[in-house]
Amino acid sequence: MTKNKKNLNLSDLGEFGLIDHLTRDFPVRQESTLKAVGDDAAVLNHAGNEIVVTTDLLVEGIHFNLIYTPLKHLGYKAVAANISDICAMNCEPLQVFVSLAFSSKFTLGHLEELYEGIRLACDFYKVDLAGGDTSTSMTGLNISITAIGQGDRNTITYRSGAKTGDLICVSGDLGASYLGLQLLEREKTIYLRDQTVQPKLEGYDHVLQRQLRPDARVDVVRLLKEKGLVPTSMIDISDGLSSEILHICRQSAVGCRIHADKIPVHAESRKVANELNLEPAMAALNGGEDYELLFTVDQKNYPVAAALPGISIIGHIIPEAEGRHLVLSDGTTTEIHAMGWNAVR
Amino acid sequence: MTKNKKNLNLSDLGEFGLIDHLTRDFPVRQESTLKAVGDDAAVLNHAGNEIVVTTDLLVEGIHFNLIYTPLKHLGYKAVAANISDICAMNCEPLQVFVSLAFSSKFTLGHLEELYEGIRLACDFYKVDLAGGDTSTSMTGLNISITAIGQGDRNTITYRSGAKTGDLICVSGDLGASYLGLQLLEREKTIYLRDQTVQPKLEGYDHVLQRQLRPDARVDVVRLLKEKGLVPTSMIDISDGLSSEILHICRQSAVGCRIHADKIPVHAESRKVANELNLEPAMAALNGGEDYELLFTVDQKNYPVAAALPGISIIGHIIPEAEGRHLVLSDGTTTEIHAMGWNAVR
Repeated sequence: MTKNKKNLNLSDLGEFGLIDHLTRDFPVRQESTLKAVGDDAAVLNHAGNEIVVTTDLLVEGIHFNLIYTPLKHLGYKAVAANISDICAMNCEPLQVFVSLAFSSKFTLGHLEELYEGIRLACDFYKVDLAGGDTSTSMTGLNISITAIGQGDRNTITYRSGAKTGDLICVSGDLGASYLGLQLLEREKTIYLRDQTVQPKLEGYDHVLQRQLRPDARVDVVRLLKEKGLVPTSMIDISDGLSSEILHICRQSAVGCRIHADKIPVHAESRKVANELNLEPAMAALNGGEDYELLFTVDQKNYPVAAALPGISIIGHIIPEAEGRHLVLSDGTTTEIHAMGWNAVR
Repeated sequence: MTKNKKNLNLSDLGEFGLIDHLTRDFPVRQESTLKAVGDDAAVLNHAGNEIVVTTDLLVEGIHFNLIYTPLKHLGYKAVAANISDICAMNCEPLQVFVSLAFSSKFTLGHLEELYEGIRLACDFYKVDLAGGDTSTSMTGLNISITAIGQGDRNTITYRSGAKTGDLICVSGDLGASYLGLQLLEREKTIYLRDQTVQPKLEGYDHVLQRQLRPDARVDVVRLLKEKGLVPTSMIDISDGLSSEILHICRQSAVGCRIHADKIPVHAESRKVANELNLEPAMAALNGGEDYELLFTVDQKNYPVAAALPGISIIGHIIPEAEGRHLVLSDGTTTEIHAMGWNAVR
């Protein structure tokens, strides 16, 4: 955690003063936000569109560690992760709600830093902070986020629509966030052993940015719309590719065949994986928090999908009875298991 | 906490199995719920109406104490408290989202009990459980709830609409929940001193029910609609009458004059207050978690307001410059301060 430079005392503000204070720099940008912070509930109007709602509860020590996550990054990431869920429905994010519970170790300066990150994310995604509250906790920091988006009934994409023959696509590159976390863990271990050693984090921009300030792929949702391509199914990769493709398979009642050598991995991720004696493919398959989009498209859309910038086609959907396979570079296949990033951690 | 009778192990279920298991008995009742639990986000359609959204984060040891709150009651209450916020907007509740983070002391049986309370509340209010997730925490139980409702643009009621001359009304009776809590605290203290003593809780049904299983006043919202009465401002009493009337005064830029002897207090609450050497009026003014509705109506609606069953007119709105007063039974006045129930606790 960074140092608190503020002299204002939390107890001087009180609960209502605190939330007023923390949310004072959040403008209302969206027409659909009729009333944001400051009443019993927010009032929204999404006339003529479907509303999508997602909610998340982040707990210190479980979902984040303040030893290597600056509060500003944490605030940004918490918002981005929820917006990623809205993107995974092929929808546009519009509002977020943030509630905090924090223990007495937190000062006003800490909370302001957290809200600065939330504000940056709201700015970047052009979403409104439309509500939330603050309270105390016995230990640590808990962050509850709800995000609301909207979409067209005909283009909202569920996990359940994949069918045999569909192409499996993924945006960006995978594994970087997990490798960034491993790098931070290594530096933490060194630091805890000898506190005069400065962490070595130069030249690791990509993996660190992906871990500390990941972005939701609203741009991919817009790209798909622009190209007139409606995925048959979609999910965001918060828990590792293996885990997410199995969600799609389970909810769509299909199988899959994924080619390991087609899974996009960034050059820097390969370098870091080598340094840490990790297998880049394992990081990509089981590392979490990439917030990329995994989606399936009808095979007839192959020409459009293949031409999408920054999108990789990594396999295809097969009948459920044929299983869920990963094809390795030597041509052998292995069954896909959901380890989740908690397992590889 | 009650005893876990289940042999099923939490780790056998895994995160996704767990949420499937816990939410299996929740039917979708509302037409506006297009997709509930099971995807990246819920999909709702409230065509032609405003949507209201409220969110709450409840932390063990701060907002509830499992020593005297059974998990089933806690689940019910958590939902009711959020629905109360929807009612305070003069709206109808439709969907709730529940996320949990719990430490290793919780078993599947515990979580099922909590969800049983959530299910009872969803049944009672006819709302859909539309999403949420579960994760672990380092200590204790955290519950994040988001509730969504809808209302008509012309009848949604904010805290900010009160004007000079308006009548101040309150539903039901106040202070009972706080007194119920004090009673439970007394019995807990006795029990911790001597664990052979059984708690004496007979004859305290009203205050205990108000503390353990309070209800949101959806019926009052419907009564107002039926009578064609649109309040000028409204708030729910979660934090004590004093605190809530000051919210209305602050956000409406008005003052108020409340008559202490018109504040509705239940006969059993008076009895309990006497036993505990507490002032019933203090419990009513500063005790929390009543979840009654506090609202203002235009003076011209006096005949309608006065005839509303279960509604008390307790004072009126005055210009801001004239202050915020409580008129005591001897005719003297005192300034209203927001102590909040945490202060009196």
